[in-house]
Amino acid sequence: MAYVNPSGEFTRDQRYISTRIAADGPYPVEAGRYRLVVSRACPWANRAIIVRRLLGLEDALSMGVAGPTHDERSWTFDLDPGGRDPVLGIERLQEAFLARYPDYDKGITVPAIVDVPTGQVVTNDFAQITIDLSLEWTAFHRAGAPSLYPVSLREEIDKVNRFVFTDVNNGVYRAGFAGTQEAYEAAYHRLFDRLDKLSSHLSTQRYLVGDTITEADVRLFTTLVRFDAVYHGHFKCNRSKLSEMPVLWAYARDLFQTPGFGDTIDFVHIKQHYYVVHKDINPTQIVPAGPSLTNWLDEHGREKLGGRPFGDGTPPAPISGFPRFA
Amino acid sequence: MAYVNPSGEFTRDQRYISTRIAADGPYPVEAGRYRLVVSRACPWANRAIIVRRLLGLEDALSMGVAGPTHDERSWTFDLDPGGRDPVLGIERLQEAFLARYPDYDKGITVPAIVDVPTGQVVTNDFAQITIDLSLEWTAFHRAGAPSLYPVSLREEIDKVNRFVFTDVNNGVYRAGFAGTQEAYEAAYHRLFDRLDKLSSHLSTQRYLVGDTITEADVRLFTTLVRFDAVYHGHFKCNRSKLSEMPVLWAYARDLFQTPGFGDTIDFVHIKQHYYVVHKDINPTQIVPAGPSLTNWLDEHGREKLGGRPFGDGTPPAPISGFPRFA
Repeated sequence: MAYVNPSGEFTRDQRYISTRIAADGPYPVEAGRYRLVVSRACPWANRAIIVRRLLGLEDALSMGVAGPTHDERSWTFDLDPGGRDPVLGIERLQEAFLARYPDYDKGITVPAIVDVPTGQVVTNDFAQITIDLSLEWTAFHRAGAPSLYPVSLREEIDKVNRFVFTDVNNGVYRAGFAGTQEAYEAAYHRLFDRLDKLSSHLSTQRYLVGDTITEADVRLFTTLVRFDAVYHGHFKCNRSKLSEMPVLWAYARDLFQTPGFGDTIDFVHIKQHYYVVHKDINPTQIVPAGPSLTNWLDEHGREKLGGRPFGDGTPPAPISGFPRFA
Repeated sequence: MAYVNPSGEFTRDQRYISTRIAADGPYPVEAGRYRLVVSRACPWANRAIIVRRLLGLEDALSMGVAGPTHDERSWTFDLDPGGRDPVLGIERLQEAFLARYPDYDKGITVPAIVDVPTGQVVTNDFAQITIDLSLEWTAFHRAGAPSLYPVSLREEIDKVNRFVFTDVNNGVYRAGFAGTQEAYEAAYHRLFDRLDKLSSHLSTQRYLVGDTITEADVRLFTTLVRFDAVYHGHFKCNRSKLSEMPVLWAYARDLFQTPGFGDTIDFVHIKQHYYVVHKDINPTQIVPAGPSLTNWLDEHGREKLGGRPFGDGTPPAPISGFPRFA
């Protein structure tokens, strides 16, 4: 495993291309100029899909969707006619990385934002991308867009995001890709200890920070929504299923049923991706038929905790086709 | 995978050594002459451990316990001082097979019964072994031993055993070792369709056949007790956990809490065995830390269905040390 260090711990390469699209930089915010490239399988890309939709940026920032599986070289546009992204005209996301850095040798990751006129990737710094969609792209936000990263809550959101990243978002990968029993067990316990704390926190409040959805909820959601479908079995995060943790399960269903969250989810892509791509932990590449996932639509009862998902704003308009369960 | 045929289906080699220990044969029933070799990990061996204990054959038929993991050649006595079975004096079960058949080239499997004076294996025909313990070893049954294979129920027990073997006992292996997605899905659906039918059957009666425990319950139990610990994740039998199927789960707990069943179970050996030995489906050999298994001791409420586990007989005396959860 490329990312396992000598003590058997999975270490995520966090050197991303950190160029920002910002009002006053070389890559100014501009409608129609950039393309967000995602995979619906990937939890990091899922954040950007959700935030783009919550903020109503679909018209200003187009989206290319790579297929759920990829080879060692790159995510590919195998879902598109002719196997090419219709806007960028490329077959592999790698081409946009090499267009900017001919010697680029780090991970070809989603989400990535590509400058359409030059075909060059601008950034794949997933943590910054969603923040910038909230703070830099305001001119193109829809009417009623929620404030996902408000100044007054920013410090608390950052704090939550830090431990959610380490223990949960990346924690499931550290469990699944651990090279030793010890490294696995450390990640496993850290994950479930954190989930217990989050359960306790969310037993009395509807959302992680404040009384509306924020960037913090987006980031926790994208891991929780993959938990029973993938992480529980494939990554051995099996103290229990999410559906056996009542508070977190209701919290996750509440978000899933909120416009902008569940309607970005393709469980088919999610399962395909993990079980087919990670041959080193699933050599047969067989994709489990279970579990049943339509329980994501079960009543959650979280309204009784108060809170208004969109605060003074409004939900995005419904879309069709998602969530896709099978 | 050695046992996967061209269409990707797992096919169990069912050519066992079918010599019987029987009153009038070359291997007569005799107290102290034979040794039952088992692994506590193995569901097929588990049947024999349970039946031996239910019938009180411990003094007449001694038992050797191989370690949970083994290499390509054989189960080994690595739990014993010096790595040798104290009665047979051998390191590997294979030695007993080769003592009888120097060119033996089929599976070295447990349960096996070895003739102690010659050191030769007599049989590893697991399905016949438990029947013979019930029918041939009667002279050594304890007072109050249950009738696990009574004449009046034999036809029905045989019928249940046939579909439980194909769809459940062996079905989980056919799911886990399938070489193609199609073969896997066929096994998966056949397994859960059968579990649904068994749930329905067991919703109104406490045991599978008649109103006492029989050989049929022993055979279903040894698969169910491994379900959440191993088959759900490792073999991708993940439509749901056993603990999410209320009737079967209560039925399995009822048996688990009946003397002779749960007190044969070593969850540590079970998990170690599957996750370490099957490198072809778990290359990292990391053993999941979950799930919590002490819920096997939760109240089951099945008494209300009537039935008397031991009929006119009595339970075996308690033993210590088992079940072992961690």
